[in-house]
Amino acid sequence: MAPLRSYVSGRWHTPDDEGAPLHDAVTGEEIARVSSAGVDMAAALAYGRDKGAELRAMTFHQRAALLKVLASYLMEHRDELYALSHRTGATKGDNKFDVDGGIGTLFGYSSKGRRELPNDTVYVDGNVEPLGKGGTFLAQHICTPLHGVAVQINAFNFPVWGPMEKFAPAFIAGVPSLVKPASQTAYLTVKLIELIIESGILPEGSLQLVAGSAGDLLDHLTEQDLVSFTGSASTAQRLRTHENIVRRSVRFNAEADSLNCSILGPDATPGTPEFDLFVKQLVTEMTVKAGQKCTAIRRAFVPTALLDDVAQATSERLAKIQVGNPANPDVRMGALASLEQREEVRRSLKALLEAGRVAFGDPDQVSVVDADAERGAFISPVLLVAEDPSQAQPHEVEAFGPVSTLMPYRDTQHVIELAVRGQGSLAGSVVTADTAFARDVVIGVAPWHGRLLVTDNENAKENTGHGSPLPGLVHGGPGRAGGGEEMGGVRGVLHHMQRTAVQGSPRVLSAVTNRWVPGTERTEGEHPFRKHLEDLRLGDTVVAGPREVTMADIEHFAEFTGDTFYAHMDEEAAAANPFFGGRVAHGYLVVSFAAGLFVQPDPGPVLANYGLENLRFLTPTFPGDSLTVTLTAKQITPRNDQEYGEVRWDADVTNQKGESVAKYDVLTLVEKREKSS
Amino acid sequence: MAPLRSYVSGRWHTPDDEGAPLHDAVTGEEIARVSSAGVDMAAALAYGRDKGAELRAMTFHQRAALLKVLASYLMEHRDELYALSHRTGATKGDNKFDVDGGIGTLFGYSSKGRRELPNDTVYVDGNVEPLGKGGTFLAQHICTPLHGVAVQINAFNFPVWGPMEKFAPAFIAGVPSLVKPASQTAYLTVKLIELIIESGILPEGSLQLVAGSAGDLLDHLTEQDLVSFTGSASTAQRLRTHENIVRRSVRFNAEADSLNCSILGPDATPGTPEFDLFVKQLVTEMTVKAGQKCTAIRRAFVPTALLDDVAQATSERLAKIQVGNPANPDVRMGALASLEQREEVRRSLKALLEAGRVAFGDPDQVSVVDADAERGAFISPVLLVAEDPSQAQPHEVEAFGPVSTLMPYRDTQHVIELAVRGQGSLAGSVVTADTAFARDVVIGVAPWHGRLLVTDNENAKENTGHGSPLPGLVHGGPGRAGGGEEMGGVRGVLHHMQRTAVQGSPRVLSAVTNRWVPGTERTEGEHPFRKHLEDLRLGDTVVAGPREVTMADIEHFAEFTGDTFYAHMDEEAAAANPFFGGRVAHGYLVVSFAAGLFVQPDPGPVLANYGLENLRFLTPTFPGDSLTVTLTAKQITPRNDQEYGEVRWDADVTNQKGESVAKYDVLTLVEKREKSS
Repeated sequence: MAPLRSYVSGRWHTPDDEGAPLHDAVTGEEIARVSSAGVDMAAALAYGRDKGAELRAMTFHQRAALLKVLASYLMEHRDELYALSHRTGATKGDNKFDVDGGIGTLFGYSSKGRRELPNDTVYVDGNVEPLGKGGTFLAQHICTPLHGVAVQINAFNFPVWGPMEKFAPAFIAGVPSLVKPASQTAYLTVKLIELIIESGILPEGSLQLVAGSAGDLLDHLTEQDLVSFTGSASTAQRLRTHENIVRRSVRFNAEADSLNCSILGPDATPGTPEFDLFVKQLVTEMTVKAGQKCTAIRRAFVPTALLDDVAQATSERLAKIQVGNPANPDVRMGALASLEQREEVRRSLKALLEAGRVAFGDPDQVSVVDADAERGAFISPVLLVAEDPSQAQPHEVEAFGPVSTLMPYRDTQHVIELAVRGQGSLAGSVVTADTAFARDVVIGVAPWHGRLLVTDNENAKENTGHGSPLPGLVHGGPGRAGGGEEMGGVRGVLHHMQRTAVQGSPRVLSAVTNRWVPGTERTEGEHPFRKHLEDLRLGDTVVAGPREVTMADIEHFAEFTGDTFYAHMDEEAAAANPFFGGRVAHGYLVVSFAAGLFVQPDPGPVLANYGLENLRFLTPTFPGDSLTVTLTAKQITPRNDQEYGEVRWDADVTNQKGESVAKYDVLTLVEKREKSS
Repeated sequence: MAPLRSYVSGRWHTPDDEGAPLHDAVTGEEIARVSSAGVDMAAALAYGRDKGAELRAMTFHQRAALLKVLASYLMEHRDELYALSHRTGATKGDNKFDVDGGIGTLFGYSSKGRRELPNDTVYVDGNVEPLGKGGTFLAQHICTPLHGVAVQINAFNFPVWGPMEKFAPAFIAGVPSLVKPASQTAYLTVKLIELIIESGILPEGSLQLVAGSAGDLLDHLTEQDLVSFTGSASTAQRLRTHENIVRRSVRFNAEADSLNCSILGPDATPGTPEFDLFVKQLVTEMTVKAGQKCTAIRRAFVPTALLDDVAQATSERLAKIQVGNPANPDVRMGALASLEQREEVRRSLKALLEAGRVAFGDPDQVSVVDADAERGAFISPVLLVAEDPSQAQPHEVEAFGPVSTLMPYRDTQHVIELAVRGQGSLAGSVVTADTAFARDVVIGVAPWHGRLLVTDNENAKENTGHGSPLPGLVHGGPGRAGGGEEMGGVRGVLHHMQRTAVQGSPRVLSAVTNRWVPGTERTEGEHPFRKHLEDLRLGDTVVAGPREVTMADIEHFAEFTGDTFYAHMDEEAAAANPFFGGRVAHGYLVVSFAAGLFVQPDPGPVLANYGLENLRFLTPTFPGDSLTVTLTAKQITPRNDQEYGEVRWDADVTNQKGESVAKYDVLTLVEKREKSS
């Protein structure tokens, strides 16, 4: 059997030796061989770093657009992935999580990249920080992509989703990836990467693959590389303390299995929708991917009075789960990834049985459909009950398979104490219709969790489930879960970037961030609303006014709009207000007059004012005051797929004394001169 | 001599043994003895964790208010700190950085806490993430304080600022601190903590102190504790790989010395203000704290043609620096912290001299004022010149004293390559009036830096200097600098909190975050503008309208405000606009009418509308459309020190078809019923 190839330094590498055999989880047949013999790890890293320059030269939007093309391409080819995925033990339903989930993560990051990041190469983090009263010295945090390679060491259980959830944010950030899948299911990841490389969609060098051992890869990391690891806690600890990683402070993110819990609220008695939702979710989490999910429910806490009911209802539901050949459409739960995994699960079950009894399933046998129960890595779902939840095992021993332990709790404080005995989890869930209970539990256990799900009948239809990480939400947890954080939308992109506080004069910050920073020179000339997107420059300004605001204006505006608030209408009452000291103009009048001053009436490149941000009324406008508005182009965002772009304008309305009356950002859509069509 | 005491588990502990002697940096006299013998580290951590509950029950604003009181108290007592600080070798000028800087950090965090954090116990991170189209299932990231202790291991060089810059963000976060100062200058930190404990301002347990060795402290950490370390890279590596820290994924933040650089722009020739600023800054960084700053300039890069000029100008300025007894007001540079430090600096100097020559100073002797040059840890400032900047030593060897190496560079690309040979720095600076050069260098070296300063004549007066971390800016750097990040305003607070993605129904997210989330039930009844702050509830709503918008309204508004944009005035031109398809009402008209609908004219608790946020116009309003506005109390922020608070309202303006025309947040100030006076 031909060994799996690696893709490094721009070419496919066939191992120098025969490699180790990998087996079909269902039949036990040899399915592939794996080895990284002969891969020059140092060269691969150097190649990635070198090619990173091309990726960094693209804007976030350009990278996001490529990710969408790639996701669509993989959608068209997902049947090829499905077929191979069955051989890892995955059912059709499991493929929804792994294959579709992986592709969905690419779509998700593409969308986040275009909506939440600038069409630029530098990310501007937070607000301008004034560092002096004179306005000549300011700071702005920026994030720039690391000049290294994101080394992504994946676990065997999600051979498609795993690599994609790490790759997507790295790519959006502008950092090339090097993927090292776990050997057991590497053949599926290799197929995925083959599809991606064949597609030619990504810039060369932005994705490399090492199938087989990591060899001396970590010895060659520099302070600009980073490592994202998913797998066991013990491997995470070994890699985290690798001499070179420690010496160079290489960023190391770990995501390890954890003893996640699900909590049933006291309100959710049998007959309530929440009771059923809890049982259904527990069975789902036990059986999807045959329980081989680092987010799966290992500990299920229920009010003492409901323990028997939950055990019975869960057992009944588990009894309907057909185990067997995952390619068979009747099968609801497939095989574990390997016979070794089954041995491992049985070992852990033994430890768990010291603290509990079996409520459903037999650790040692299972009847299967359309497969050989012994040659394939099949195991029955096993529900345990530990009547005494104070014992150590259920909180410390993880059986990485279709195994959960049901435990009783007394009250809210008790269940919080039990939950946190997991010492850090990726995910937890609370099933309750009682908002107060949900709040108490969420706040109580949040410091130990990366994600918490509250399930109730109201959200049941749209609920994505306890075990599903989502691209927009953080994935990772403290303590036992590895202490890491992945995804979380833009947060996951920033993990691949260096945050730097830049201090300087306004004009320097403007140049670094491609945003006009107050204090930078303004350019007055042709009205900027007459300029197309390409012709507009940061700092292009129109100063318009002055216009006097009369008492008649205020009274007229009040009458016209209906806004007869006393501060505008009643001198005595207005004088008693702590902020005004007399009748003042409406804030809405001020911004309306300002628009009347800066607008250009004729058709031109400015198509629409689609919004306003950060409006603050700073000084009251009294009858007789004269307003001047200064409008300055602050940020210009071309849309690659549109005939227009977004322009953000800094608006500063001042009175005759030069005091700022109102400051805000005006958001407009501005046409391009050159149309793409 | 009485040994220094520790403050643990709510009491002052006197060591069980005699302790090791500490010496006055200036006279060499024994000044104190230090030992942590007999401190029960496990008990101290357990005590802190237990007392954390009290701190967590306070809001961010309450903690921030205490920090301000504490800072004011320390200001009154700073002379006591100054006096002792001289004995560490620090001059009056140095005290500005250490003592005043430390107190300033407390003020800074107090201000950030009140301005940028909610008056609540939970931090809401980012926006609500919709997870389904039906709006029944959403997510919100929250941050909650860790239930552990922030163990803060400080360096010897900033005995006041060091502990305070770690303590302030931890305290605001709601996490108790345990401070372990470096022994050499521990007597000053102990004095500081004595003042704080004596003041009685902080809740008991929120600040503990271990003077002397950390003993088995790290063995007792849990996943809820965290460690912030400042010191040498080698110690950082040793602590980072501590078995218990690794096993429990204890958060570990390191801030290590780095070979920070300063770059002179090619434009900054002799005679320019920037040339002088560069030289002045270099001398300052060499001599403040006798160069014992982890942010000090170790490498100074100048254009080849300017090398001699810079060497000469810097030497001339260094010649004016009077070294000697730091308590003497004429003295500009005091002593190193100890004789051992001087030996260490001389050793490093030897290595540096292999790659360069001395341009100023004598490593082995210095003339001093008002002190004994040998008994005190005095050393001359030493400026080195390395004509060949490609050699390793200047980029790798750090002399932690008044020592810098001047090196020539050819062009922008060359200086970027040289700068990043430091392999990660806390701070870098560029001195130039050339904005393009500044941008190229900043973007080029940013991935290797935590902070970058661009100095020019424009900001010279307000410039806070290359070596000064500021509470609002991140402090820390990648690679050699330890890979950590401290401060940075709210970012530093969040380092002490766990970020958790909470998924659930709108009403659950509302309950968890104390913010009304769209989709949650609204309560209509008494007009909410008639309610005082204490009586207002999240979800209190007024629905007002409908009001028809006529063509006459549009034309009248255009005429009145002057906003005669064609989309409002010209049917044919408006129809050609890609977004409208016909004449539409002004966005400002829509929000003005909405205000007219929801306003309550008579004096009442709503004092003012101080702003608007996130306004988006979503659907055009055509003549004949009818507008309804729904205004809902979204966030209520009482101000502890004011007679009012801030209320944020969700505004949703809809048309007769139920489509949202505009959505935005209205910001108001609302009076309290109960006045504090």
